[in-house]
Order: sequence, then C-alpha cells, then structure tokens
Amino acid sequence: MSSRTETTALRASARGGRVPASPIRRLMPLAEEAKKRGVRVHHLNIGQPDLETPEAMRGRLSRYSERVIAYSPSGGTPEYLGFLVEYYRRLGLRLTPDELIATTGGSEAILFAFLACADPGDEALVVEPFYTNYSAFAAMAGVTLVPLTSRVENGFHLPPREAWERAASPRTKIVLLCNPNNPTGTVYSPEELHAVAAFCRDRGIFLIADEVYREFVYDGRRTVSALALEGCEESVVLVDSLSKRYSSCGIRLGCLATRNRDVHRACLRMAQGRPSPPGLAQFVAVGALDLPPEYMSGVVAEYQRRRDVLDEGLRRIPGVFLPKPEGAFYFIARLPIADGDDFASWLLTDFQLDGATVMIAPARGFYATPGLGADQVRIAYVLKEADLRASVEILRSALETYAHRRGAGHARPTVPDGPDLFLPQGS
Amino acid sequence: MSSRTETTALRASARGGRVPASPIRRLMPLAEEAKKRGVRVHHLNIGQPDLETPEAMRGRLSRYSERVIAYSPSGGTPEYLGFLVEYYRRLGLRLTPDELIATTGGSEAILFAFLACADPGDEALVVEPFYTNYSAFAAMAGVTLVPLTSRVENGFHLPPREAWERAASPRTKIVLLCNPNNPTGTVYSPEELHAVAAFCRDRGIFLIADEVYREFVYDGRRTVSALALEGCEESVVLVDSLSKRYSSCGIRLGCLATRNRDVHRACLRMAQGRPSPPGLAQFVAVGALDLPPEYMSGVVAEYQRRRDVLDEGLRRIPGVFLPKPEGAFYFIARLPIADGDDFASWLLTDFQLDGATVMIAPARGFYATPGLGADQVRIAYVLKEADLRASVEILRSALETYAHRRGAGHARPTVPDGPDLFLPQGS
Repeated sequence: MSSRTETTALRASARGGRVPASPIRRLMPLAEEAKKRGVRVHHLNIGQPDLETPEAMRGRLSRYSERVIAYSPSGGTPEYLGFLVEYYRRLGLRLTPDELIATTGGSEAILFAFLACADPGDEALVVEPFYTNYSAFAAMAGVTLVPLTSRVENGFHLPPREAWERAASPRTKIVLLCNPNNPTGTVYSPEELHAVAAFCRDRGIFLIADEVYREFVYDGRRTVSALALEGCEESVVLVDSLSKRYSSCGIRLGCLATRNRDVHRACLRMAQGRPSPPGLAQFVAVGALDLPPEYMSGVVAEYQRRRDVLDEGLRRIPGVFLPKPEGAFYFIARLPIADGDDFASWLLTDFQLDGATVMIAPARGFYATPGLGADQVRIAYVLKEADLRASVEILRSALETYAHRRGAGHARPTVPDGPDLFLPQGS
Repeated sequence: MSSRTETTALRASARGGRVPASPIRRLMPLAEEAKKRGVRVHHLNIGQPDLETPEAMRGRLSRYSERVIAYSPSGGTPEYLGFLVEYYRRLGLRLTPDELIATTGGSEAILFAFLACADPGDEALVVEPFYTNYSAFAAMAGVTLVPLTSRVENGFHLPPREAWERAASPRTKIVLLCNPNNPTGTVYSPEELHAVAAFCRDRGIFLIADEVYREFVYDGRRTVSALALEGCEESVVLVDSLSKRYSSCGIRLGCLATRNRDVHRACLRMAQGRPSPPGLAQFVAVGALDLPPEYMSGVVAEYQRRRDVLDEGLRRIPGVFLPKPEGAFYFIARLPIADGDDFASWLLTDFQLDGATVMIAPARGFYATPGLGADQVRIAYVLKEADLRASVEILRSALETYAHRRGAGHARPTVPDGPDLFLPQGS
C-alpha cells in the first residue's frame, strides 16, 4: 500500500489540477488555532446567513409523510416548480414550468449553464472581482474566465462597452454577471444591465445572470432581473438559489430559468442524467410560499442596518475606502495595507482586542488579474449588530497596530493544504 | 419576444447537444396515455425501489432541531463521514475521512471522478450494455465512452484481457465498471475484478468502480470491492450511493472514496466549489447506523424472491433467454422479437391482458455500439411479487400476440421531446 507521503504515481487530470482551492482556505487553520488560544473570532469572511430558516419551511420537516423518499422528476417536483412560477410571477416575471429546472443549489445551475452555453476552450467574460467559485465551475467546464476589471473608486460599477468589446474574442460565448454582486455589494442600474444585454445580443453570446441576492438591495433600490430585459429572451440564462433569500444554504436548492429552448433542453438532459434534485429540499422549499411579504422586507431591513453599522464605522477609520454597499451582504473595502493576505493572517495569529479578533477574506482571491486587490478585503455582514460594532473597533485598532508593527516584511505562515476543515464561505 | 415555435437563434454548446435523452423517454407519454385509457401499467422499467425508506432514517426528520439549515462542510459533515467510515469498516475496508467526499448522490461522484481522472478528448472504457446516465456524465465531461461488449450468452461477464487491450488507446484514462451491474444483473467474480484491476495498474489508468448495488447479490454470493484489491490503491476511485441500499433515492446522497491523494484533492476542490452536499440528507443518512444487520439481509431476501419469480417465469416462455441474474435489481433478457423499441411501444399502445400491461426498457439504449441489443430488454424488479407474477403472464401473452399480429412492420409512433413528464428511471 502506498504511503501517504509518497508522490502520487497516477496523476489527476489537468483540469482537476486547475480547480482552485478556496482563497481563504489557508486562513482556516489559523482561525482554529486562534480559537484554541481562547481568542474569539468574528467571522466577517463567511456567506452563511445567521438568520433563522423560516419556520414555515423548517416546520414542514416534521410533516414529511412519504414512506419512500423517492426520486423526484429530474426538472423538479410539480409543487416546487409551481412555487417558482408563483415566486417569479410576484416579481412580474412570467415563467412557465418548462422554462425552469430545479437544481442542487445555484451552483449546479451555474455548472449546467456553463456546460450548455460553451464548449471546452471557449471563453466567458466576467467582471472582477468575482465570486471565487466561478473559477471552480469554469475549470470543471473547461471554460476560460476572461476578467473585466471593475474598480473600487467607481463603486465597482460596470466598465463601458468599449472594455467589453476589447475583452471579447471569437471564442467568447458567455457573459457571467452577478447582480446584486458578491463580493462587491454593487447593484447594477437598469442602464448598465441594458448595455450588457445589448452587447450579448449584438454578439450572439449568452448572458448568465446570477441573481441569488435579488432581494438584498438597500436604500429603496430595486433590481431588474435579466429575464425582464426586452429582446434578450434567447440569450439570458438565469441562475437562482433559495440559500440566501430564505437563509437555507444547507438544503441545496435553486433553479435555472431560460427561454432559450435549446439551452433548456441541454440542461434538462443533464438534469435527467443526475437524475433528480434533492427531494427533501423541494418539500421544505414550498413552505416559503406561505411567508408574508413582511418576511423579506424584515430580512432586508436587518441587513441594511448591519450594512450601516459597518459602512459608517469603517469609513471613519483613517485610510479605509469603501463605496457605500448597495446590495447583497458583502462589500469590498480598500484598507491602508499593502498585502491583504498578510493582514488577514496577522489578524488571526498576532492580534486581539479584548480577547477578540476578526477573520476577513483577502480580496486578491476574487480577482483573476494578478496583482489586483492586494490592498482590499471582502467583508460579509451575516453577524449581529453588536458583533459588527465590535468588529469595527477591532479593525480600527488592528490597522493602527499593524501600521506600526516591527518587521513589516513579516512572513506569512505556511499551512499545508490539509483535510476539509473548513465550512464553505458561501456564494 | 421570440415565439416558442421559432428555431432558437442562439444555439447551445456542442457538448450540450451531445447529452443524450433518456432512452425510455419516448415511451413515457405512451404509458401516460395507456393509464388514461384505464390500462394498469406495471413498471418494469424503473429503478426506484418500492421498499420503505427505513424509519431509522425517515424518523430523524421530525427531530431536526437546527434553526438555521446551514452549509455543511464541503466534504461532508463529521457525522456523515463517520457513518461512512463505520459502514466501510463493517465491510472490512479501512477508510479515513480524508479519503472520502460526500456527494450529491452517486451521480455527482461519477461526474467528479470523470472530471478528475480525464481531460476533454480522453477516453473511458466501459462494458456495454451500461447504465445510460454514464453517457450524460461523459458528455458533460467531454470524455468519450469506448464500449467493450459483454454478451447475454455469456451472462454478461467480462471480456478477456485481449479485448481490453484492443479497446485501449493512448487517450484511455479510465475504466468504468459497475459491480453488481446495472443493467445486466451480473456480479463479477474476484478473478474478473483482479484481471481488470491489473489491466488498469499495468496501463496506469484509473478504475472508477460504481458499487451502489454492493449488497444486492443473490444465492449467497459475496462481492469484492475494488477498494479491497491489493496493489490498486492509486488507481481505484469508488463511487457509492445510499439510494438503493436504503431505498432513499430522493435524498441524493452518496460518496466518492479514493486513496489517490491527487484525485481526492481535485475532487475535494470541486466539492468546495459547489460548496456543500445536501445537509438534510446527511442528517437523515446517519440513522442507517442504527439498522440491525437483518435490515439488509431482509432487503436482499426480498429482492432474491422477486428475481426468482421473474427468472423462473420468464425462462419458461418460448424464445426468451436470460442468464440467471446474480445481483442488483435489473437484468437483461433476450426476447423472440426483432426490435425492442417497437415491442415496448406496442405493449403500451396496443396490448393489454385483463386490463393491464407492462412497461419495459428496450436494451438498445444501454449499448453504445449501434445495432446491439435490438432483441433485448431491461427488466427491473422493484414491484411486489404479485405484480411480477402478473407481469410474467402479460409478457407471455404479449409475445404470443406480437408474434402473430398483422403488419409486423408496425411503425413506431413518434412522440416529441416534450417537457419533463417523466420520473427518473434510476441508476
């Protein structure tokens, strides 16, 4: 039997090697060690909402009465598809069940969309910084992500059409757009969306729209769904998920919606191959139909208060720059540091304020262009307001200490790529 | 807005078009129509067990007490991984949690394995007839399935090494083996397994072993897991699922197990990308630890009785040939017909005995080599004995009538590729 320390003789595929590790993976053991030392770690790095999954959904579990937990139809149960149709109807979007496919989270919808819209070697344009897991799906699908840079100074709003034209090539088959945006917290205006959609239509490429944070918009903003854009019916593939909206990441349920029959057919065949989405999740999901409108407005108000705590607190810290977050529950801030990876490590290994520190996600991992984002970090606000206030004070004090510490060239500890200790940082 | 009848202007990817439709898809509307005419349809076509999901698992649902249904670790919860370690330990297989990855059914494990073991354009050897969904995963992964034919006359046992050598090319990276076998019901002997494993080791290719029917072996047989084969630690990637074992297809939970560190790392990163397996499923699954050994032996005895009903009944019908099924809950039989697709359609459209008919899966869809399997059908036995006895009589009478009917050139009705009416036929 081969020893664990031996080099593997039989190597994984090239694409297997290209699936990236999580950019915060390296930090997880440092957080664990800090906790072992008795330091409280405020997790500003994760995308797992702390709000309760609504009782209207959870409560259904005790009423599950099927004696055989059987396959559900590949495209989704009639009940779940009916729920989706009604959910979108309330948003003003007319969709029929045969334009929808139930998926195992938004993740499977993204993978299906990549596979159905592009062939190996094709390219997808994506605005950086972007959700890091897109890189995993792209590697799995053999699609090259071509980044268009959005800038903190500009609130991470979309680059002009010329930039899109420059970035495109004959192999460009996809624009992948996350709106409201993880990790930046930017909400694109209808005009921005129309411009991107027109670009896609003119070039005959697909617009994969990741709208899992649809409701998470602040200050009275409204989002426009890509599916509502006129003249783009053929090109839009919507990716959606219940994870964030109903604080139910663990059920793994989402959907893909498209009016492009050819793409729908290809995705449905993939769905038939696997051959069924999670059944218990679909059973739980339909409980969301019973939620009053106040449920979502309450959730959004809660996140807006949290955003305000961080936004107001952080922008008072000298050297910190952040655009006012418009949506989702993340944002990217520029800090007065040279190396976000070093700072994030140092927070866990060398710093504490009253027995507590924070874990943040260095932003470099959200950029495809090397060198970008070194002085930026992503901050999520899925913690209670009191913890967020404490986190602001920790960051204020930490930045001061960090600026004055000896040995600014402080080497980052190396941590091996160990077993799966970490909880997903979320979408 | 484009009309539904218009041709799609923006086409799906080439690989999207290569994902095959289910071979029984065409028959589903015919079965629906038969039911509308009041004909009872015995479904010998599906792989959805009719046995109850054990109360030890289902009963846990009402005890789920988490207030947030949160992401679980990407590789699986400690509890589920612990369950898997214990399950394999009882089989005599020593596995550690870091050799395992929880997957969304066996299906995701197959997809991960394909992606991690081969690059687009690479080849996988597979013994035909084979589980049709392998074609979907292969198309998604851009891997070409190269069939080695096994023959009904030979009980669908494995071809000799020369055949494997002839089928292999420099692009061969994978042998994909399902044991006990769906669709044939064959259980490979230790000698057969050793021969395949040696072939893989000698050529430096991976052996992806699909063992989701592991316990389903009859007449006192025992299966050998590919993971137990000495000297093959680097090459074996095990694909497993709880769906059949615990009659729980709908929870969508399985695992991938490998001692190849490079493949494990690649698959774990894919797992991190999606970023979590279904949480409720893992919560339910661990209940299986409390099942007494009599649970599985009872299930196997039940299926063996069912097999006996079909085996004894069908082999008395003139012109029917079938090897005695050794495992799983399917087999392939050769019937005295020229075209299994036509016969299967005709059973639904033109035949009934005492108000009932049967739905069977034409075997042609399980072969990659054109023309093979035309006179064969796959029969699953996930129905009660009484229904199986009735099914035998229906088939006996139907074959007699079919042989004497006028217009043997009877055209098959064409049925459009409609919406997702059908329940998965199972793995």
